[in-house]
Amino acid sequence: MAQAKKITPRAHDYSEWYNDVIMQAELADHSPVRGCMVIRPHGYRIWELMQRALDDMFKATGHQNAYFPLFIPMSFLAKEAEHVEGFAKEVALVTHTRLMATGKAGAQALMPDPASALEEPLVVRPTSETIIYAMFAKWIQSYRDLPLLMNQWCNIVRWELRTRLFLRTTEFLWQEGHTAHATEPEAEAEARRMLGVYRTFQEQWMAMPVITGRKTDSEKFAGAVRTYALEGLMQDNKALQAGTSHNLGQNFAKAFQVKYQTAPGGLDYVWNTSWGVTTRMIGGLVMTHSDDNGLVCPPKLAPVQVVIVPIWKSEEERGQASGVGGRVKTELEQAGIRVELDLRDNMKPGAKYFEWEAKGVPLRLEIGPRDVAAGQAMAARRTGGKAPIKLDGLARTVAGVLEEIQTGLFAAARERPEAHSVRGVTKQQFIEFMKGAGGGGFAYGGFCGSGGCEAEIKQETGATVRVLPDPEFRSAEAPTTCMWCGKPSVAEAVWAQAY
Amino acid sequence: MAQAKKITPRAHDYSEWYNDVIMQAELADHSPVRGCMVIRPHGYRIWELMQRALDDMFKATGHQNAYFPLFIPMSFLAKEAEHVEGFAKEVALVTHTRLMATGKAGAQALMPDPASALEEPLVVRPTSETIIYAMFAKWIQSYRDLPLLMNQWCNIVRWELRTRLFLRTTEFLWQEGHTAHATEPEAEAEARRMLGVYRTFQEQWMAMPVITGRKTDSEKFAGAVRTYALEGLMQDNKALQAGTSHNLGQNFAKAFQVKYQTAPGGLDYVWNTSWGVTTRMIGGLVMTHSDDNGLVCPPKLAPVQVVIVPIWKSEEERGQASGVGGRVKTELEQAGIRVELDLRDNMKPGAKYFEWEAKGVPLRLEIGPRDVAAGQAMAARRTGGKAPIKLDGLARTVAGVLEEIQTGLFAAARERPEAHSVRGVTKQQFIEFMKGAGGGGFAYGGFCGSGGCEAEIKQETGATVRVLPDPEFRSAEAPTTCMWCGKPSVAEAVWAQAY
Repeated sequence: MAQAKKITPRAHDYSEWYNDVIMQAELADHSPVRGCMVIRPHGYRIWELMQRALDDMFKATGHQNAYFPLFIPMSFLAKEAEHVEGFAKEVALVTHTRLMATGKAGAQALMPDPASALEEPLVVRPTSETIIYAMFAKWIQSYRDLPLLMNQWCNIVRWELRTRLFLRTTEFLWQEGHTAHATEPEAEAEARRMLGVYRTFQEQWMAMPVITGRKTDSEKFAGAVRTYALEGLMQDNKALQAGTSHNLGQNFAKAFQVKYQTAPGGLDYVWNTSWGVTTRMIGGLVMTHSDDNGLVCPPKLAPVQVVIVPIWKSEEERGQASGVGGRVKTELEQAGIRVELDLRDNMKPGAKYFEWEAKGVPLRLEIGPRDVAAGQAMAARRTGGKAPIKLDGLARTVAGVLEEIQTGLFAAARERPEAHSVRGVTKQQFIEFMKGAGGGGFAYGGFCGSGGCEAEIKQETGATVRVLPDPEFRSAEAPTTCMWCGKPSVAEAVWAQAY
Repeated sequence: MAQAKKITPRAHDYSEWYNDVIMQAELADHSPVRGCMVIRPHGYRIWELMQRALDDMFKATGHQNAYFPLFIPMSFLAKEAEHVEGFAKEVALVTHTRLMATGKAGAQALMPDPASALEEPLVVRPTSETIIYAMFAKWIQSYRDLPLLMNQWCNIVRWELRTRLFLRTTEFLWQEGHTAHATEPEAEAEARRMLGVYRTFQEQWMAMPVITGRKTDSEKFAGAVRTYALEGLMQDNKALQAGTSHNLGQNFAKAFQVKYQTAPGGLDYVWNTSWGVTTRMIGGLVMTHSDDNGLVCPPKLAPVQVVIVPIWKSEEERGQASGVGGRVKTELEQAGIRVELDLRDNMKPGAKYFEWEAKGVPLRLEIGPRDVAAGQAMAARRTGGKAPIKLDGLARTVAGVLEEIQTGLFAAARERPEAHSVRGVTKQQFIEFMKGAGGGGFAYGGFCGSGGCEAEIKQETGATVRVLPDPEFRSAEAPTTCMWCGKPSVAEAVWAQAY
């Protein structure tokens, strides 16, 4: 495969660093298709681990998986006015269904066969509310059918002009939950519950701290009544929206005639929610923990949690170290730990360390002749620190170390947003914070709620309201005036420049 | 949800029966998008269980999952001549990326924005050889990078004119394995190995007997050197192609310049294989086991393996039966059994039985007042038979019963193709077999290898060569002449009418 290459230091060029980390860790690669990436096995394994953890949580909260069509009739999109407005400029449209050859034999090219033009073009799903609620209308008759709690794992296409690996790609993978409820409060509770599920996952699995709250009208999902979001702060002090959960009210139910017979015998529209997280989270994971040596992956989501590198000079040493390595591997595997034994004989140990570090493996066990003799392995943590551990009771020790690394990563990650947040800012402080040498971060301040202020702030500083934060994230003292225009504040807001 | 409806008996209309079983079991539903279906939770759960089992087998044989783009540049398809020929007439083409409103305000419709026309249309993947081997060319440099063993789980689009739930849909879900090897024998061994993996899965998990063998040139994959397939015989004596594995030779490697440095230092093209199974297998599962009461699902792939139905008349009885039911549920869950406790109070037990039978649940445990008193449950098998089992040691007993049902289904399913096969047929016998009242099946006979005979046979009887069978499926006596034209036979062939 590709030769190991030096990773651009963060301080030199953050954006290049990000790409280098991904390419060196072989998480993803650029494809020949504009804006589309290839998720390579190491990156896809992270996604599988994310899927498994989230899917278990979805099922534990009563959701069932299903699969809905990739294609959506163009007219469906138009049924919810805000929705089509939001997506019309970024949809891939299927218009033909056959290719034909054109040009002379020997120099033939292909073109869409005009005779195969579709009567109604099909939209490649940019999200599936419309097609899913059209089906809900068929399945839901009575209050006994509610709540209907569904989820699908699938690919999504939004025609993006500026793309970046994982963070913004024309095609991406995600899950989208879609639910229908008998009452508004139930839908609201569901939207909040799933926001909580995401937060638990992002904190406990990704070790990525997030703040949660509500989006302003200008940032909410096209067609939603209310959008809730999770926002992480990356190492360059830009915010990453890491997931959203929408209370859709009856907007789509009315557009798609999703009605149900109420318990007393009346007829009402259902109340919907939708919520999703995407492969973008892998970008968030990369930017939350990694360093100038490459990927740092929290153990719970690491494709390889432990790599064993036997060290030898003679053939005899090789046999011994490999033998011990093999036994250690089996023992760790039996304890449910994801482990690799690196027996490649065309690479020096140092080159192996370099490669596994770039791939983010949390713990490396080096086993050399002296370790074999002493009944130990040298344990080097990806996050720093190296110490011998006894082979006796190794699996338990390693499990403990992995847990420490997981906890340690979260603790370290929590410090950054706190160190790069300002509260109760004035307009002047805000501008300096966003445009100054510190490089921005989360700015908490009063907000009048006007779209005019939002637009001005974005124009002048590039910052947007990330969320109107949930109570636990709010400042001790509620702001009384809009930090920008000075009018009365309707809510505290958190601004940041964002991905 | 929809009211339970009578299922059309197989003898009355097999095709209607098939649809009824799927709709009643809520496996899938028709969508508003031509040829696309919705896979409902009960059907999707079967797919998830299939995925899990197959994915474990793929990983155990050294394969890694990855994800490649949905879109393929039109020109890529053209690089392998047979490949484009095979798929040109059934591809969905993306030509535009924005919608615009047309017509007057208030009566607006949408149309693709002509200004957003793509320079090169994109093909929605009908299979991914071209895009994947374009990436392999980037990743493979040396013999040390080989074999490269990848797989992806994804959606696929082939524009089909006549569609049927699961069996043939415009969009379907599948996995496609793609591998690159240093030598021809290694690629051949891989193609055969994965055929074996599929066979193990289909026999041991789906309880569906299959015959394996090679496809004739007219039936092989567009671009392959050799295609191997698995063929099952459905209850209507039509064959279902249940999976394929292709030795692609160097065809795609040459088209996409996938070269590697050999160990001695030369340069050669790699040897590729690809192999896939799809959601079509769910259709095969339905047609292999189900009856006029609905779905029969082999326990290993049943979303619900056991349903507990407490029976009560008084509130006191209700409390007791539900209490016991709850404890039984917990015990079975702890033993890793997928179980539901049906406590709905708006349905009579008989209606519940009817519903769970239609959904294919292998085992029903009825717990009434007398059962509570006797410390037992009545165990009714979906495949027939009802007997009390002791609550003491229940989980172990139930696990045993489920295993018996699994084994019994496979044994029963094995009898059918044997009873509906003829060997060493003459032309006249063949025609009578295929067109007669018996309704066809597998016909084994000599084959001259000519496409002319294949075309004539198809024209006259609707039958095609399903496979040139592997040794273990061949007749004891090798045929010497083509059963159709009388010329020397080059191989025994298995013909059938097919889905």
